[in-house]
Amino acid sequence: MTGHSPIANRKSQIENRILLAHGGGGELTRQLLAERIVPKLSNALLAPLTDSALLDLPSGRICLTTDAYVVQPVEFPGGDIGRLAVCGTVNDLAVCGARPHALSLALVLEEGLELALLDRVIDSIAAAAKEAGVVVATGDTKVVERQRGDGLTITTAGVGPLREGVQLGMERVRAGDVILVTGRIAEHGLAVMSAREGLKFSTAIRSDVAPLVSLIESMLAAGGAGVKFLRDPTRGGLACVLADLAEGAKLAVEVEESAVPISAAVLHTAEMLGLDPLTIANEGKCVAVVASDAADAVLAACRSHPLGACAAIIGRLVESPVPLVELITRIGGRRIVQRPYGEELPRIC
Amino acid sequence: MTGHSPIANRKSQIENRILLAHGGGGELTRQLLAERIVPKLSNALLAPLTDSALLDLPSGRICLTTDAYVVQPVEFPGGDIGRLAVCGTVNDLAVCGARPHALSLALVLEEGLELALLDRVIDSIAAAAKEAGVVVATGDTKVVERQRGDGLTITTAGVGPLREGVQLGMERVRAGDVILVTGRIAEHGLAVMSAREGLKFSTAIRSDVAPLVSLIESMLAAGGAGVKFLRDPTRGGLACVLADLAEGAKLAVEVEESAVPISAAVLHTAEMLGLDPLTIANEGKCVAVVASDAADAVLAACRSHPLGACAAIIGRLVESPVPLVELITRIGGRRIVQRPYGEELPRIC
Repeated sequence: MTGHSPIANRKSQIENRILLAHGGGGELTRQLLAERIVPKLSNALLAPLTDSALLDLPSGRICLTTDAYVVQPVEFPGGDIGRLAVCGTVNDLAVCGARPHALSLALVLEEGLELALLDRVIDSIAAAAKEAGVVVATGDTKVVERQRGDGLTITTAGVGPLREGVQLGMERVRAGDVILVTGRIAEHGLAVMSAREGLKFSTAIRSDVAPLVSLIESMLAAGGAGVKFLRDPTRGGLACVLADLAEGAKLAVEVEESAVPISAAVLHTAEMLGLDPLTIANEGKCVAVVASDAADAVLAACRSHPLGACAAIIGRLVESPVPLVELITRIGGRRIVQRPYGEELPRIC
Repeated sequence: MTGHSPIANRKSQIENRILLAHGGGGELTRQLLAERIVPKLSNALLAPLTDSALLDLPSGRICLTTDAYVVQPVEFPGGDIGRLAVCGTVNDLAVCGARPHALSLALVLEEGLELALLDRVIDSIAAAAKEAGVVVATGDTKVVERQRGDGLTITTAGVGPLREGVQLGMERVRAGDVILVTGRIAEHGLAVMSAREGLKFSTAIRSDVAPLVSLIESMLAAGGAGVKFLRDPTRGGLACVLADLAEGAKLAVEVEESAVPISAAVLHTAEMLGLDPLTIANEGKCVAVVASDAADAVLAACRSHPLGACAAIIGRLVESPVPLVELITRIGGRRIVQRPYGEELPRIC
């Protein structure tokens, strides 16, 4: 009966949660890492737990990227903050033409965080890293006082060598190039929002969070130098990538609204909420600018990959005195698409 | 007179602070980066603001490290969270024998953070990076709602190539090797604590936060292969490094209390607070294990460097059936030094 006494219950509540002392760098920190984190992420680089990991990279140019993840809630339909952190970082490397090699993982935990939640997130990190073909090579864990943090935030950095012969950059984009997106848009942002707000109507919407490494590898293999620019449309959505593209290439972007892949559930939910799907975050999609003569090959490569089945060519770049993004609407009208000003959906990644 | 009206005051209060929309990935995010962050950290790698930075590293082995910084307050005597983040990361690379090359910088800002404070921290990051000889190559900025964050947290990752011919590792440590510390201990932890608690008695104590790159370069040049192991005694202090060393090398560590460099102010403050200086964090010190025949040369190299003027040999490694750390006290007694259990001084880095 002891297990049910108030004192035992209180004890078990404390034992199942993160304490400030877990972040002190002492014995409890060592235990937390050795028992709950390192074994799950196990690999030869991480095991020594030294101050930094030693990577054997082929000589050449190396890409480095970082992202901080503050998504709320940390678990949502289709994923969680751990999967998001791994995928976001490998995707940033992949769209630059790099082969993701290793990640660093920094956790900031709030005192009182349930250890069971931490366990699930670490499991998810391990699974996503395996899926993406990378290792977590080094990390850091800090704890902040109750109500001074926000449950769990994760910052990952990633490194990987640039693939040989790949040249990606906005400066290679020309009028006549086509714009391709690898699948249905706006799923991640709406999935997180529905989880946060407890919106029942959109339970069918799941985050698209996924590592794009192998999809991008297929696209580059199919399109060669015809693939000129890649970007994953996360915060700010497709609208932000297209605005960057127009400005960077000093061209106009024309997009056919009817060509943009989007599920009926997402379209209707966004409409009901008064949100523009073009500005909603994606975490498993890639926008590509491709020379027109390579477009069919790249599209075919996408469609034969599980993550690119709904890929579509959505528009093109055209000469223009003003670098604008124009959406040709379903009824044939034209509207200017702007970079969203601020935060329509905060804390989405 | 308009400038003094309540509405104008309220407006200026809002304008001088971080808004949620600064983290949305849209126009305000772009402005924040373009106006307040990128120009100060200006370098060729960061300027393109792509998803990842392209580094030209010499071929060979690359070190990768990361740290999350949650220090409170973010400004303290002798430094701030920005200087701490840069120094902590370059020092983690340096003690592994790497030449720090580039950093990533992820900021998590709390809504309402004063822009003036952000400006000071970014200035401090720029200055510390210059001092350490590294560039901030890539970054990310997120904003969390008021009271869901803690002002400003920073996560940095760092990469750098391993110096040629350097072999550092606990497995090279042998009985007879000596232990050296590059200066006075426990200054960072006490400086932060005094700033946090408003303790007037210790205004003389300033954080030692500094980049150790050039000091470690001098030590390696002087000691060659005789330098076997380096570690910066941050969270957990000297006690934690010595405990790791005893366990890792399966030897006993003997330290002479009277040989450990410490200022009178630190010693007395720690005593008054009932804290053991051996467990208090440092951010500009290095512990080295050196072959006895290289000890004089390494000590001399330290002492001729501005950051190593108070360097001292504090102990040695001896054969023992039990891997313990023993402190030989000023009066000739012996006490076992343990890895601190949890958090004596929380949020110190």
